[in-house]
Amino acid sequence: MLVVMQAHATEDQVRAVCQKIESMGYRAHALPGAQRTAIGITGNKGEVEPGTLEEMPGVQELIRVSKPYKLVSRDLKEENTIITFPGTDASIGGRGLAIIAGPCAIENREQAFTVAERVCRAGAQFFRGGAYKPRTSPYSFQGLGEEGLRIMAEIRDKFGMRIVTEAIDNESLELVEEYADVIQIGARNMQNFSLLKRAGRTRKPVLLKRGMSATVEEFLMAAEYVMSEGNYNVILCERGVRTFADHTRNTLDLSVVPAVQRLSHLPIVVDPSHGTGKRNKVTPLSRAAVAVGADGLIVEVHHQPDKALSDGMQSLYPDQFDDLMSQVRQIAPVVGRTVPAIGSHTSAPLQARSGVQSSASPLT
Amino acid sequence: MLVVMQAHATEDQVRAVCQKIESMGYRAHALPGAQRTAIGITGNKGEVEPGTLEEMPGVQELIRVSKPYKLVSRDLKEENTIITFPGTDASIGGRGLAIIAGPCAIENREQAFTVAERVCRAGAQFFRGGAYKPRTSPYSFQGLGEEGLRIMAEIRDKFGMRIVTEAIDNESLELVEEYADVIQIGARNMQNFSLLKRAGRTRKPVLLKRGMSATVEEFLMAAEYVMSEGNYNVILCERGVRTFADHTRNTLDLSVVPAVQRLSHLPIVVDPSHGTGKRNKVTPLSRAAVAVGADGLIVEVHHQPDKALSDGMQSLYPDQFDDLMSQVRQIAPVVGRTVPAIGSHTSAPLQARSGVQSSASPLT
Amino acid sequence: MLVVMQAHATEDQVRAVCQKIESMGYRAHALPGAQRTAIGITGNKGEVEPGTLEEMPGVQELIRVSKPYKLVSRDLKEENTIITFPGTDASIGGRGLAIIAGPCAIENREQAFTVAERVCRAGAQFFRGGAYKPRTSPYSFQGLGEEGLRIMAEIRDKFGMRIVTEAIDNESLELVEEYADVIQIGARNMQNFSLLKRAGRTRKPVLLKRGMSATVEEFLMAAEYVMSEGNYNVILCERGVRTFADHTRNTLDLSVVPAVQRLSHLPIVVDPSHGTGKRNKVTPLSRAAVAVGADGLIVEVHHQPDKALSDGMQSLYPDQFDDLMSQVRQIAPVVGRTVPAIGSHTSAPLQARSGVQSSASPLT
Amino acid sequence: MLVVMQAHATEDQVRAVCQKIESMGYRAHALPGAQRTAIGITGNKGEVEPGTLEEMPGVQELIRVSKPYKLVSRDLKEENTIITFPGTDASIGGRGLAIIAGPCAIENREQAFTVAERVCRAGAQFFRGGAYKPRTSPYSFQGLGEEGLRIMAEIRDKFGMRIVTEAIDNESLELVEEYADVIQIGARNMQNFSLLKRAGRTRKPVLLKRGMSATVEEFLMAAEYVMSEGNYNVILCERGVRTFADHTRNTLDLSVVPAVQRLSHLPIVVDPSHGTGKRNKVTPLSRAAVAVGADGLIVEVHHQPDKALSDGMQSLYPDQFDDLMSQVRQIAPVVGRTVPAIGSHTSAPLQARSGVQSSASPLT
Repeated sequence: MLVVMQAHATEDQVRAVCQKIESMGYRAHALPGAQRTAIGITGNKGEVEPGTLEEMPGVQELIRVSKPYKLVSRDLKEENTIITFPGTDASIGGRGLAIIAGPCAIENREQAFTVAERVCRAGAQFFRGGAYKPRTSPYSFQGLGEEGLRIMAEIRDKFGMRIVTEAIDNESLELVEEYADVIQIGARNMQNFSLLKRAGRTRKPVLLKRGMSATVEEFLMAAEYVMSEGNYNVILCERGVRTFADHTRNTLDLSVVPAVQRLSHLPIVVDPSHGTGKRNKVTPLSRAAVAVGADGLIVEVHHQPDKALSDGMQSLYPDQFDDLMSQVRQIAPVVGRTVPAIGSHTSAPLQARSGVQSSASPLT
Repeated sequence: MLVVMQAHATEDQVRAVCQKIESMGYRAHALPGAQRTAIGITGNKGEVEPGTLEEMPGVQELIRVSKPYKLVSRDLKEENTIITFPGTDASIGGRGLAIIAGPCAIENREQAFTVAERVCRAGAQFFRGGAYKPRTSPYSFQGLGEEGLRIMAEIRDKFGMRIVTEAIDNESLELVEEYADVIQIGARNMQNFSLLKRAGRTRKPVLLKRGMSATVEEFLMAAEYVMSEGNYNVILCERGVRTFADHTRNTLDLSVVPAVQRLSHLPIVVDPSHGTGKRNKVTPLSRAAVAVGADGLIVEVHHQPDKALSDGMQSLYPDQFDDLMSQVRQIAPVVGRTVPAIGSHTSAPLQARSGVQSSASPLT
Repeated sequence: MLVVMQAHATEDQVRAVCQKIESMGYRAHALPGAQRTAIGITGNKGEVEPGTLEEMPGVQELIRVSKPYKLVSRDLKEENTIITFPGTDASIGGRGLAIIAGPCAIENREQAFTVAERVCRAGAQFFRGGAYKPRTSPYSFQGLGEEGLRIMAEIRDKFGMRIVTEAIDNESLELVEEYADVIQIGARNMQNFSLLKRAGRTRKPVLLKRGMSATVEEFLMAAEYVMSEGNYNVILCERGVRTFADHTRNTLDLSVVPAVQRLSHLPIVVDPSHGTGKRNKVTPLSRAAVAVGADGLIVEVHHQPDKALSDGMQSLYPDQFDDLMSQVRQIAPVVGRTVPAIGSHTSAPLQARSGVQSSASPLT
Repeated sequence: MLVVMQAHATEDQVRAVCQKIESMGYRAHALPGAQRTAIGITGNKGEVEPGTLEEMPGVQELIRVSKPYKLVSRDLKEENTIITFPGTDASIGGRGLAIIAGPCAIENREQAFTVAERVCRAGAQFFRGGAYKPRTSPYSFQGLGEEGLRIMAEIRDKFGMRIVTEAIDNESLELVEEYADVIQIGARNMQNFSLLKRAGRTRKPVLLKRGMSATVEEFLMAAEYVMSEGNYNVILCERGVRTFADHTRNTLDLSVVPAVQRLSHLPIVVDPSHGTGKRNKVTPLSRAAVAVGADGLIVEVHHQPDKALSDGMQSLYPDQFDDLMSQVRQIAPVVGRTVPAIGSHTSAPLQARSGVQSSASPLT
């Protein structure tokens, strides 16, 4: 159920409707748009009895929702969600293309800084790196843990890039929330609903990767889990799905970008590294991802891929990443996007360590 | 790395080798077989320096393992793992076919007891029911939680059936471990490695469902995660994989049963309810699962499927389950299996609430 | 559009309705059932103007068909289609399980006779063997052609088994129609509509294999193509579909058997050889196929699989086939089926070389 | 087996080696490159006895081929195959992007001319349209047949666009060869080996669509079938593969473009219309296809999609196609491609109706 407020409804009227909804035992999610505010109701097991809501001051209409997702839906919020990071010019979902780059795993301080220096110079506004690695084998390198997070925080301080890193359970999520700027939920955890809810209770944006065999509806419902707990800053990420095709590790499904953009206001980025699993296909598919209209890229870069502790096969050399950026820079304008020039973004001292401000943030 | 002990090696010699391995900073997993004991070494990042191990008393040979899985492998343990439940004649992996039945979700005491009474009478030795439900939508019924577990514990007390129920995170796992006899890990959590490790530190058998797009290797590696923490009682479960085919909710891949049985000593059961998603296909596929050689079935039964809070479409009516059991009872002998007669199993008071004893249990 | 005749409608009335339909520019397909005859109308581009049909003598009602398939549908013909082979006790779709066995390819007279002798003795009523092989590579062995057909015809004369062999184009189909008893259309040609129509104009039953990525609807529509040309003797065959799973060459989708049986009156057999691609999985999956309710099996057997010119990996040794038959013989009765005893079937001289009579045959 | 000739080998020497190979009972395929000529040997069942070949004048070395494909391979021919069409500036595989556009099916003269006029003006050098339609249902519109071909031939005469149309069997292929410039083999016939061989004996280029579940190897082997008969002008076409994803009709696998380009010298184009099945996704995916490096696009356009006899859902309106071309025109230069300006290409009277000249054409 959605409550659509009148264009001239006051903040007090919105607040009153929200209080009414909560007094009925439901949760209210006020989502202000350019023209009007819509209030999503969740927490109802069955039908919501609209009764008194309809007649409250400032209410325009009540809409029954048939689709299983509500908060992620463009029906609820027509404008794109743009996630901004105060203290930087970086954003995700706006005109600027978000470039997230870095090694698969943080292996040590030297490796991380070497790669960071290069991807920052090439124009990345976000640094990615795994401190907690979900590995198929229990005997593979599982990441440096908090030590890795500390290294990434130093990288933010030095280079001004915002940090994106994966949380794999409640324990790591607590630390990731503390150190990083964006909490990544991996493909294998896309339906770890407990973790999604926990991430929904943090104040940091969540980058949610599509599961290996997730339909668009399941993908959006996973985002809905995060949002239903009050965190509206979700970034979706296509990273390839599993099919019979064996020329790439996964099959990158670029059609999901326009599909998501029709249904949802949330930004969506593409991961051509996991999406192909092969270094020589990362750059062509990065070009394609920008051309199809993605809001950004997340790319693995390593200065010594052959010695990487994980995913070396799909990591670009820094020179290849420079080249990728130069190609992407030419395609972006065709789809109305900008890409930061080389070495252009701020690396000034930051006041707030990892503040985030979203166009989707609720009333307060 | 495997250390194969001589046939006449003493328990002291085995213990000494284990201690040596642990003193080297690794973990030792002693797995006694009919002829000899093998000791798996895990926790090594790279090569294990065999040095002194080879010359210890009782050691026959050291085998380098090339396959990514070790503890699940039939190379390590040739005999089938049979999981027994003291105080009952139920077991999983032995000659007797394990029949696990019950509703998708525990909805209330009356529903649970009604179904339990019927499936028990039909011959099920295990009662399944969800207290924690991983649902695609955050707005769907999520299970009764601990209240559901309590109801199931009462069912064990009254009917003597052992309880199988799903844990979805560390919190629920703690409670499931306390109340239930078998901890189920669902398909969506098959690569929730944090949960797998946590389950590996419990003393209850783990029923691990195959992920929707998991290869056999990934499936076995997930079991390896549980075993690598010391819990050797893992039951694998085929529940259908995701394909293009749309006449069933998932595509039940029965060939995985002989495939797993070649590679691993672990038992494997089949879930034709999720595997097809359609009531009218559950019985034919149950027959097929037994015929292909599965160690058991896990079947959804509900006395009022049309009113079920989840998965009503695929739940059998109790009469249909009777019929299924009667058909399965005729096929089982062809593959050298027995099925308990109607109402035959023990419902005598149990000494140990949920003890478990496995042929795979480590030295103590 | 279906015209359902009254139970007591005369043959003359049926014929008159058919003539009326054809005079309207459509094709009429009279399909007699136990209770009544239904007449399918095909060849219409859009709506059929029912007008005068409704009021003709003997007509009970006109049913608009919303499903894309008509002639294959159980709506049109409630009773199972049973395909019989005069001069033998073999049939497909009736109580007796149809066992089709033989080598992948006919390599030479000696090989074919050696295998034929063994599968015949084990109880197969049908001999399969490829004379025209659709191979992925143009450089692989493509079959003996007409020479292979001649060898199979000799095998029919000597052993009394009916011959099943593949046609890959119009040219080979003409010869296959002449020499064989059942025309096989392979998975790769399931949507070779031109070949399907051509097969629909023959008088021999057609064994139609499911395409590697065919939905049930596409599968049935392919059969509809054959039937729409007047050949109602179609046997469907599940042979595995293509998925991400890599432990078998294809993923055998046994749930398609009950799915097809609900929608269609046509018989369906299972090919566990192509369905798994691995010798050690053929027998378990054969048991499962019979248990799920298939109307028969089609199995590859070779006396020297290691020297086979194609598909050696999945061919059973004759002793393994004996064993398969003995297991299948025990499961069949559970699903109400019979399997011919060892060496029991007729090998008496046959009057008609390859006559066929079907319970689905149209009025004449 | 490949025979690599010396850089300075004469045409006579090449011819002598070819004659020698043919005298040994094999087929020789001379493929001249920029530096040297390589000669592929096919038709061998097993090993080729190199014996005398190695010592013939002009021969540099003999290479045993382990990959199953030979003639399609970049090992055999390093330079890209560029297919040119004398009398026009159109080509496929060169610097210029090949734009193929038109309705799914030719429905009548007026429809075809209306669409042709628009796509020609927008810059398409090739006109596509189906005269023979492979339809899932035998009751759907199957195309106008030769009448459709005649209409397309008129369109070539009037607009100067080259004609691309599908052949579905030997009969239609004969007519398509006569009337059209490029013979399309559809996805459903990708492994109709009989049709592939027949197409290999024509003198017209073949546009070969990837099968719905074809691996790259199977795709290339299908092209090998055509080439092994002597027709070296094959254009590959990605048109989406079948997966579990349901937001598009097929999943467009753009990674196959760089994958094919690594392995083969053949050009590859992308069909975003069938690849997505949804009008609103055709333009974004067209941009992506050009960005990933495809040699061209094949797009469905209809002036009244709602009235189209087939595939209306995925056909662009002419205005949308104009827009697509304008976007593609901006992306092409980034990947070193050119796109003809609006209305720029020749529509001068053509001498040869449908001549074709390929950089891959054999010696003679």
